Amino acid sequence: MVNLSDKAAENLALVREKKPLIHNITNFVVMNYTANALLAMGASPVMAHARNEVEDMVSFAGALVLNIGTLTDEWIESMIKAGIKASAQGTPIILDPVGSGATPLRTNSARRIIDQSNISVIRGNASEILSLRHEESKTKGVDSLHSVDEAADTARILAEELQTTLAITGPVDLVTDGRRIVRVSNGDPLMGFVTGTGCTATTVIGAFLAVDEDPLRAAATALAFFGLAGETAGKAATAPGSFMIQMQDALYNISPTELREGCKIEET
Amino acid sequence: MVNLSDKAAENLALVREKKPLIHNITNFVVMNYTANALLAMGASPVMAHARNEVEDMVSFAGALVLNIGTLTDEWIESMIKAGIKASAQGTPIILDPVGSGATPLRTNSARRIIDQSNISVIRGNASEILSLRHEESKTKGVDSLHSVDEAADTARILAEELQTTLAITGPVDLVTDGRRIVRVSNGDPLMGFVTGTGCTATTVIGAFLAVDEDPLRAAATALAFFGLAGETAGKAATAPGSFMIQMQDALYNISPTELREGCKIEET
Amino acid sequence: MVNLSDKAAENLALVREKKPLIHNITNFVVMNYTANALLAMGASPVMAHARNEVEDMVSFAGALVLNIGTLTDEWIESMIKAGIKASAQGTPIILDPVGSGATPLRTNSARRIIDQSNISVIRGNASEILSLRHEESKTKGVDSLHSVDEAADTARILAEELQTTLAITGPVDLVTDGRRIVRVSNGDPLMGFVTGTGCTATTVIGAFLAVDEDPLRAAATALAFFGLAGETAGKAATAPGSFMIQMQDALYNISPTELREGCKIEET
Repeated sequence: MVNLSDKAAENLALVREKKPLIHNITNFVVMNYTANALLAMGASPVMAHARNEVEDMVSFAGALVLNIGTLTDEWIESMIKAGIKASAQGTPIILDPVGSGATPLRTNSARRIIDQSNISVIRGNASEILSLRHEESKTKGVDSLHSVDEAADTARILAEELQTTLAITGPVDLVTDGRRIVRVSNGDPLMGFVTGTGCTATTVIGAFLAVDEDPLRAAATALAFFGLAGETAGKAATAPGSFMIQMQDALYNISPTELREGCKIEET
Repeated sequence: MVNLSDKAAENLALVREKKPLIHNITNFVVMNYTANALLAMGASPVMAHARNEVEDMVSFAGALVLNIGTLTDEWIESMIKAGIKASAQGTPIILDPVGSGATPLRTNSARRIIDQSNISVIRGNASEILSLRHEESKTKGVDSLHSVDEAADTARILAEELQTTLAITGPVDLVTDGRRIVRVSNGDPLMGFVTGTGCTATTVIGAFLAVDEDPLRAAATALAFFGLAGETAGKAATAPGSFMIQMQDALYNISPTELREGCKIEET
Repeated sequence: MVNLSDKAAENLALVREKKPLIHNITNFVVMNYTANALLAMGASPVMAHARNEVEDMVSFAGALVLNIGTLTDEWIESMIKAGIKASAQGTPIILDPVGSGATPLRTNSARRIIDQSNISVIRGNASEILSLRHEESKTKGVDSLHSVDEAADTARILAEELQTTLAITGPVDLVTDGRRIVRVSNGDPLMGFVTGTGCTATTVIGAFLAVDEDPLRAAATALAFFGLAGETAGKAATAPGSFMIQMQDALYNISPTELREGCKIEET
């Protein structure tokens, strides 16, 4: 594996150069924030969910982001349609199974999406990710119930079984494709006080997937970038309102060089 | 009634300690802002509206927030389903009848929700609240058409008839359960220039309802907290954009002690 | 044509005095931001999209804003119903054909709305506007593919054919009613890094349409006001997060006199 700090810098530069169109079918709570994050970092967002439009829209996207945060059956159908089309044309897909494990609708919908399309990366907290295998997990909202560390082995095996890359975020993020395991420790505690930071991490990974063919590398470098934006924001703000604005500024301001130097990615 | 300033401090501390999950079925305009307000103050938000999920989700919620701001028949059905389930299990419900009185759909939907579930608190402006009885009121958007003062007696009688607690917000907020009347005068004029401050007041009351079994007390102390956040923001910002961010910061920063000292609650 | 700088100042003062209710049927991404923009500038926003409510709601609106950013067939039906009602009662309508040209659903929906109601102004980027005539254009998200200058003659002819006023925004905005052409050069490059600045320009024009019976004048003066807000924000912020908040502040702070002096409107 090439040096991941160099690759992080390269991916960020590529996003800013190519401005990939990222097609999001996501939840109502975070749409504005994630669209702004994509614009701030240099990508090009589009939100489109109509059943009779998603295949057209994804056909010229660089990546597809599926997020079940405010799901209904109709939206899941659109996600599956878009996912099938993206899979067929080789467009990378990232899934955010928000709240999977909390209700049967969420768990079942996440599994249906996974079954019917070729997902490059699944990003969630440990509880959400683990729910994709176990029924007994009950997430409390979108909060994490399991530590990242105790989930590491399980995650690697689960990634292998699901034939995808898992990005489990928490105080330390764990990324595994079933073979390799990478840890990312960039971040700031205030990220937990802003709604949609997880969802935004997902869409930032989506942008990196559009320029990096290795899903594990794309996910790890994107999480380092997003976490560094959190660290940068944490130096300028001490409360969540100001912090969420400073994060958007940081996504715009951080240079590839600063990312290379600020990356905290550990290969194990 | 115990001292309400002490109770305000106690409720805020309890929310931060217990981090109650607040289930919101609310409007598209304010979802992000209200979710962030709940996180900033220390609660745990979830937004879920699918008809085949709301009963599962509300089953582990500390309170249910129903807000008809961008209603459709489908959403109202979900609100009613969630409301019936919450009522059956004793979970407190707060209703925000946004724009009730402005159109038949809003007025009728608000009444249907009230008829079919056990609502702990209804928060609205005077016009919205009065529309729950009178047909002649026409609200102009979500602005108030009647003064809080002229509505006081009517409100007490209406609360008695509806067997609920009414929280009528304006320059001075009036809270009544049909027996007691409490006035809260915390707040800042810039709150009227930020969309969803009323809706956010509602969801903040929701969080306090999750930790205080007396709806009048929960509503009054939550409105004092939210109004104090407005006052705090008003000292740091002179225009609505900055002000809305400062309010989020204040919801995070205000300590129970500061709330006790800053409370402007008058029992009559 | 009266002096447009004077008219800009007059329109802004009228909005703040009359606080017109602006009925928006718009996309999920920008609802919060556009509602806040309307409040900040002094107008009164309402968002309502239910098929069985839009006619009631638009009946007391000063203007109707239709925006297809996250369209579905159901939402388009509501837009058409509201548009027919608004047309019948003489309420001005502004259409934002977000992404028209990118997918058949968007192009066809925009055309259906135009065919079935009396649109005062259509605001979009050059690609979106040109898609209303040509099939071959493919917009990349909501980015512009054609320069404003090369579109000028085409725009004037297209406005004539569609019997409406076209507001084509970009580094320099072009407004034409098929007879007159006006250019507005207020603005700031950071506006392109905030989602929904185009959609917000549309809703600001909506507010000006509610107080100015000449659509070309309303559109040009509103774009100058919105662009000046961008310029003002650009003096206080150097990255998109802070900038988007400063824009809201500027919409609140700019006085009619400052607008008269800061206007960059050129009649040709």
